[in-house]
Amino acid sequence: MEKSKSEEKKITNRKEDYNQWYLDVIDAAELAENSPVKGCMIIKPCGYALWEKTQRILDEKFKATGVQNAYFPMLIPERLLKREESHIEGFAPEVAVVTHAGGKKLEEPLILRPTSETIMYEVFSKWIRSHRDLPLLINQWANVIRWEMRTRLFLRTTEFLWQEGHTVHTTEEGAVERVLMMLNIYKDFSENYMAIPVIPGRKSESEKFAGAKDTYCVEAMMQDGKALQFATSHNLGQNFAKAFDVTFLDESNIKQYGWQTSWGLSTRVIGALIMSHSDDKGLVLPPKIAPTQVVIVPIIPKEWDKQLVMEESQTVFSNLTLVGISAKLDDRDMRPGEKFYEWEKKGIPLRIEIGPKDLASNTVVIVRRDTGEKKTISLPDLNDAVVSTLELIQNNLFEQAKNRLTENTVEVNTWEEFVKAIEENKFVSAHWSGDREVEAAIKDETRATIRCIPFNQIKESGTCVKSGKPSEGRVIFAKSY
Amino acid sequence: MEKSKSEEKKITNRKEDYNQWYLDVIDAAELAENSPVKGCMIIKPCGYALWEKTQRILDEKFKATGVQNAYFPMLIPERLLKREESHIEGFAPEVAVVTHAGGKKLEEPLILRPTSETIMYEVFSKWIRSHRDLPLLINQWANVIRWEMRTRLFLRTTEFLWQEGHTVHTTEEGAVERVLMMLNIYKDFSENYMAIPVIPGRKSESEKFAGAKDTYCVEAMMQDGKALQFATSHNLGQNFAKAFDVTFLDESNIKQYGWQTSWGLSTRVIGALIMSHSDDKGLVLPPKIAPTQVVIVPIIPKEWDKQLVMEESQTVFSNLTLVGISAKLDDRDMRPGEKFYEWEKKGIPLRIEIGPKDLASNTVVIVRRDTGEKKTISLPDLNDAVVSTLELIQNNLFEQAKNRLTENTVEVNTWEEFVKAIEENKFVSAHWSGDREVEAAIKDETRATIRCIPFNQIKESGTCVKSGKPSEGRVIFAKSY
Repeated sequence: MEKSKSEEKKITNRKEDYNQWYLDVIDAAELAENSPVKGCMIIKPCGYALWEKTQRILDEKFKATGVQNAYFPMLIPERLLKREESHIEGFAPEVAVVTHAGGKKLEEPLILRPTSETIMYEVFSKWIRSHRDLPLLINQWANVIRWEMRTRLFLRTTEFLWQEGHTVHTTEEGAVERVLMMLNIYKDFSENYMAIPVIPGRKSESEKFAGAKDTYCVEAMMQDGKALQFATSHNLGQNFAKAFDVTFLDESNIKQYGWQTSWGLSTRVIGALIMSHSDDKGLVLPPKIAPTQVVIVPIIPKEWDKQLVMEESQTVFSNLTLVGISAKLDDRDMRPGEKFYEWEKKGIPLRIEIGPKDLASNTVVIVRRDTGEKKTISLPDLNDAVVSTLELIQNNLFEQAKNRLTENTVEVNTWEEFVKAIEENKFVSAHWSGDREVEAAIKDETRATIRCIPFNQIKESGTCVKSGKPSEGRVIFAKSY
Repeated sequence: MEKSKSEEKKITNRKEDYNQWYLDVIDAAELAENSPVKGCMIIKPCGYALWEKTQRILDEKFKATGVQNAYFPMLIPERLLKREESHIEGFAPEVAVVTHAGGKKLEEPLILRPTSETIMYEVFSKWIRSHRDLPLLINQWANVIRWEMRTRLFLRTTEFLWQEGHTVHTTEEGAVERVLMMLNIYKDFSENYMAIPVIPGRKSESEKFAGAKDTYCVEAMMQDGKALQFATSHNLGQNFAKAFDVTFLDESNIKQYGWQTSWGLSTRVIGALIMSHSDDKGLVLPPKIAPTQVVIVPIIPKEWDKQLVMEESQTVFSNLTLVGISAKLDDRDMRPGEKFYEWEKKGIPLRIEIGPKDLASNTVVIVRRDTGEKKTISLPDLNDAVVSTLELIQNNLFEQAKNRLTENTVEVNTWEEFVKAIEENKFVSAHWSGDREVEAAIKDETRATIRCIPFNQIKESGTCVKSGKPSEGRVIFAKSY
């Protein structure tokens, strides 16, 4: 598409300046850019294609569990947002307000949705009458607005895109089951498509969603050791049901409050993807999330080779497409080296080079983006080689990220160890007393927060690393995005 | 999903009260409802599924012509909106304004996008440098806000969903070609998927898009004879390019302004779909747009028949699914009559009834939603019969709508004829002088507007039906939604 300045610009080395490297990769891969509106981003075609693929994968998984998509208004009357007390406390500082419309001052200001619990549950309360109407399983793909002071492309933007699921159940068990089911879909998507290993767990009281009973999350480690959370699943208990009168008649015709959940994943996930796998040459994409998995570059040193090479390239393209591989044939009139450089920056997992010399020996060359490894493949074996190499790349990226997570997660038992490990940007597994004040003190001193109380937490007696009080198990601390 | 009141509510007869009938069908088919926010609608799962199918069909067609999806911010600085004079004149009365955010008054108010020409072209001007960057072909799927006084579900809502395509070309011919290409995609989608025949043409000066050089449209006739336009394609000429400095260096390295287009289709199309085919029993959907094409209803008069009937129903479901038909097996514990009634209201094109008597003769019964026609089909022929019947339904709905359009379009040559035909809610083909004042006078007197100057307009000398001035061809007048 557009010719951006990035073609001449070098990507900053990760070790020199990690934050600049992140922005350089986004620029070089043409994923997004800042907009004329402060804090809002423009998601460029290469970035949006990643979001579309994310949508397609998740949407199918959601629907397989009975979830239906719908669409609720982005404008929310102020009075609705105020209905659930802790919810408005959490969101009030971040809302944007429409005060004028159609040339007039509005009687009641309208909030741009920061999330849709309030407007949806106001409506759910009218939809639901009896236990036969439950579970109600609704999802929407939408934009939301949260006024952020310090923004960064994908990671924190004033407007972002996401999906938000909202369900109502007759029992608490039903709601909890749904919360964990959706968290598991996020974990599966993260690990098996984005090749990002995650630690699933529960949030501490002070880190949970405003208005939730419990918040569950998947926490990933970026290349700089910091944590990034891109999906959460909330057990809302009956908090919102009581505020919005979401009730049903049970089998004995008695009015009961519904048990609710909400769960969401946002364009933040693209930030996680970039920071998990990319390198100093640019973006690296796992094949299962890459919009284009393979690029075919014809090498035409002399004009008389052109027809043969182009024909063979076209055949290779067709063969790959037939077996469901998303391939691109780059037949632009440019030097192959320039093309290699461009697709490397853009993270296409596998490159196929087809030149007259190779064809003379009935072979082509394949080059992996993740390792740079080159291999000569005999033409009849190409489809199989591509399929198996894409699998190898997918697994390699996951293993790399997994090793990073394992190597950089440490158990500590003293405050000195804790401070040192957090300074080194590690994930720290440590005993914590369970007190909100201790958690706050730790954050003040080290900027580390409790990322989660992991599901695989072992019950063991210990003493809180900060307060010395008794503790029943370790939790994960880290600095985070 | 939810049990709505509509299950007991009768649908108003079309002839009694057309407008109430429209709302009743939407309610009965659970497509949408009004929201707590005035003028905004909630698109319910059955309605959203129609939008998702629309998206999938169009998105593929757009991409096949080289269009790429992206996402631009929904908040637009006021100064940008003001840059193109006729554009802001057109949209100023309809904008909603964010004045406060993050607890503070904003330095510059932000507009909620009514359309995205301004924010996109501000950015395009930075993306485009040379003729090699063109054509630039961008589309986005998004929500937009236009403050409307009188709203109606799907047809006119304060917030609606749409796609907006925006392209930049090196030549006027390139832009015009794109404008017509996209209009043709809308026509194809309308006629071959939604079974709605349309009259493609150009808008008069006073009806064109604010800021466009020319607006092209597809006009459809609803069952009450009124016109509904749900997609437009604009030749923007260089108006916006000059306002936003969208320039490129041509092959001689000389700076030139780009030639631009924009084109959009909105959730309004669902209103057109409802009003084109539905009847007094509820929604009628053409099979190619129906999210569920076939519903299978097992008939189980006695408990001992259950296993056999259910097994056969399951087999029929699997067989249909295998050949790509979207089927639903309704195995709920309810009387078959209630199920028939529900799926009729919801517009599922074909019903299959499977009962023990039929199975004894190795047959099933199929029932068309459009005609109510019942047929007994031998089981081995079922898949073929379903495929061909769905085709018949699709064609029948198109033919019905086409006949309505033909029968209710009249040529008139006098003002008396004109007034009478418009009163009878006809499409009127009449000579018009080409003067904006005459057009306005006609609208004042009859509420009829020029729907389009049709592409198939025959050059013929005539006299304007209103002013008596000379005219070179007939245009289409009608009352419209």
